Amino acid sequence: MQVAIPLQIAIEELSKLPSVGEKTAQRIALHLLSLDEYNVQMLAKSLINLKEKLHFCKRCYNITEKEFCEICENPKRDSNLICVVENINDVISIEKSNEFNGLYHVLGGVLNPLAGIGIEDIRIKELVKRVQIEKIDEIFLALNPDTEGETTTLYLTKVLKPFGKKITKIPTGLPVGGDLEFTDRATIGRAILSRVEV
Amino acid sequence: MQVAIPLQIAIEELSKLPSVGEKTAQRIALHLLSLDEYNVQMLAKSLINLKEKLHFCKRCYNITEKEFCEICENPKRDSNLICVVENINDVISIEKSNEFNGLYHVLGGVLNPLAGIGIEDIRIKELVKRVQIEKIDEIFLALNPDTEGETTTLYLTKVLKPFGKKITKIPTGLPVGGDLEFTDRATIGRAILSRVEV
Repeated sequence: MQVAIPLQIAIEELSKLPSVGEKTAQRIALHLLSLDEYNVQMLAKSLINLKEKLHFCKRCYNITEKEFCEICENPKRDSNLICVVENINDVISIEKSNEFNGLYHVLGGVLNPLAGIGIEDIRIKELVKRVQIEKIDEIFLALNPDTEGETTTLYLTKVLKPFGKKITKIPTGLPVGGDLEFTDRATIGRAILSRVEV
Repeated sequence: MQVAIPLQIAIEELSKLPSVGEKTAQRIALHLLSLDEYNVQMLAKSLINLKEKLHFCKRCYNITEKEFCEICENPKRDSNLICVVENINDVISIEKSNEFNGLYHVLGGVLNPLAGIGIEDIRIKELVKRVQIEKIDEIFLALNPDTEGETTTLYLTKVLKPFGKKITKIPTGLPVGGDLEFTDRATIGRAILSRVEV
């Protein structure tokens, strides 16, 4: 049989989401069919609200309902320290650690020549402008330790060096609770090279 | 920081979906934020349409936009053969195999006393009524070969026996391309007991 058209369309739309394959999309769609209409409306409305109510903070490009985000507006945060991240997911992860009290700058991506993402495609210009205008002591480049992240870290270091600020980055090492036996060679190699005194 | 309220609500709603944990919900929500408003509207609308346009077929409880589903209305399908399945997912899977040409009866669940799903909670009454009214030769009980599925098969066999129809079920065995070495003992045991002549 041909799957009913509205079901087919919903499966197609759901399949476009990250981490959702066709099988999962079908399971989700059939699950929604079994719910009350009210619950499905609530879900649909919450997705529309996302786009309608949220936009980027004018200073750091985090998301917010207002002009500036909660973090930028919080007088208790240390505005001399700015943490540069790839995307909003990273802001959420770092905030959850409760260890960072500075401000952010969300690049909206990392340099990836193979995927056609260049210097103009991420918010490097905006970062440089902030470094020129704001009173910043330290720029913490918290990008993922993979090829694209490290390329971006390297490029940003080169661009920001002339401003004479302290530039830091995430150390590579073993995660808390990690196990040498199950750690890849590259990570172990790096950990050895960047070993710290106790 | 507190995650922005509309984002928090969307993550919460998405987390309620099957196969979507909190991390995936967050990834999906942030992905939606990066899309055009039009695309998010399309997704939301497709979910609402699901509930508004689709309902159960009055005969077999498959989903349809009309009163009776495409399968029940198709004169080329063999109405003497009725395949009993747990849910609509199974109808889709069986249809994809292109090997079944009869009609369906969707129970909407299987007997599961531990989860509080009893005889009155699935469409057994409706099945018995069809067997009484319709001209049916064979009832093919295509329920999963797990505890709940087999309990349901057993119960249905008992209930349907008095009508004198042929009752069949899914054979247990190895899947096509399967490997004895990696098959569990229970499956191998069953396969031996139900071995067929070649």
